[in-house]
Amino acid sequence: MTKPCIICVAITGSVPRKKDNPAVPVTIEEQVESTQAAFEAGASICHAHVRNDDETPTSDPDRFARLVEGLKKHCPGMIIQLSTGGRSGAGRDRGGMLSLRPDMASLSVGSNNFPTRVYENAPDLVDWLASEMRTYEVKPEIEAFDLSHIFKAAEMSRDGRIPGKLYVQFVMGVKNAMPCDREVFDYYIKTVKRLTPDAEWCAAGIGRHQVEVNEWSIAGGGHTRT
Amino acid sequence: MTKPCIICVAITGSVPRKKDNPAVPVTIEEQVESTQAAFEAGASICHAHVRNDDETPTSDPDRFARLVEGLKKHCPGMIIQLSTGGRSGAGRDRGGMLSLRPDMASLSVGSNNFPTRVYENAPDLVDWLASEMRTYEVKPEIEAFDLSHIFKAAEMSRDGRIPGKLYVQFVMGVKNAMPCDREVFDYYIKTVKRLTPDAEWCAAGIGRHQVEVNEWSIAGGGHTRT
Ligand SMILES: [Zn+2]
Ligand SMILES: [Zn+2]
Ligand SMILES: [Zn+2]
Ligand SMILES: [Zn+2]
Repeated sequence: MTKPCIICVAITGSVPRKKDNPAVPVTIEEQVESTQAAFEAGASICHAHVRNDDETPTSDPDRFARLVEGLKKHCPGMIIQLSTGGRSGAGRDRGGMLSLRPDMASLSVGSNNFPTRVYENAPDLVDWLASEMRTYEVKPEIEAFDLSHIFKAAEMSRDGRIPGKLYVQFVMGVKNAMPCDREVFDYYIKTVKRLTPDAEWCAAGIGRHQVEVNEWSIAGGGHTRT
Repeated sequence: MTKPCIICVAITGSVPRKKDNPAVPVTIEEQVESTQAAFEAGASICHAHVRNDDETPTSDPDRFARLVEGLKKHCPGMIIQLSTGGRSGAGRDRGGMLSLRPDMASLSVGSNNFPTRVYENAPDLVDWLASEMRTYEVKPEIEAFDLSHIFKAAEMSRDGRIPGKLYVQFVMGVKNAMPCDREVFDYYIKTVKRLTPDAEWCAAGIGRHQVEVNEWSIAGGGHTRT
């Protein structure tokens, strides 16, 4: 039995601007258009951030609502995953869009360093985001920036804070967090299987590491993020 | 050839109070006395925090100076390691005692969660603490609360921000950081050896995990923290 390979398209992210890459979709209309092209090419999950008019990242629920509406119309059946990441807001603002009941949302369960700052996910915020996801029946994608995040996710799965099968994404190649390292990648898979045998996993390599990590994921039986 | 087993005694720490355990040495005098007993029993490194009169932790360089003076007098030859940890101060206050030129100081190189909060070690603070340690010729003990911290330490060793042999301590059993896990412990050792073959390592299990982790360390050829 072959598992289907899920392709997850991350539109826009929270960092690149039009001045860096004019092809980056930034407005809601551009995002929907770009996602539709990926959907027609076979992507089945859309991982989405939204931007303000000045291109800065935001967690604004109204913008997310417009995006979700456009995606449902133009990409029927596509799994919509909204980012609750900390580049777009702080504290509970990061979860304001969960009441839109997207299929999935990203969930960081630990803290780590980013290139120039601390990526803060305090324990009480993590618990609150997870409880909002239970309330609105949103499936979390755990963003594992380090090994202990896999342990934390498994703990939250065991005690019911995260219901159902765990879905973990390994994030590699972020400066000052976990680098892109094949042995660690294999150890992440081994650890997920040891702690929560029925979990699913995917992986994202940042920037120049994207293609490399995708190849490892496909070979290892995980999903891929483009 | 057998490597000598270095025993590192952590006096006081930053958390327990007299009301929790009346035997905890809290004043400088009590700390020196307690360290002397450990020194005479064979401990060769003293990992030290200091407290205010109300027992709250502090990074006050004057208190550290009095402690260092007492230790040098009563434990001649003992390696003195001062904590730059974030429970005792914030920002650059954490490194104010480095000008005392202790033999060693603890150095966190990444961020992670603690039981109720984020343990913040922003990249620029990490770099500043490391540069102060170079200035005052203080050998850092890397506090690895997660796997990526070992990678970060190896990177800083390669580029000279940490001169000499790396000395890494694995910290396990802190809630919301890395739990006490034998397979991870072995993987930490394997990773240290892969990334920086001439590094030395030790390990600390927090609270009820202390004895267990010490046994693993001795079996694995590392130093132990009591
Ligand atoms: Zn994202
Ligand atoms: Zn994914
Ligand atoms: Zn300490
Ligand atoms: Zn030690």
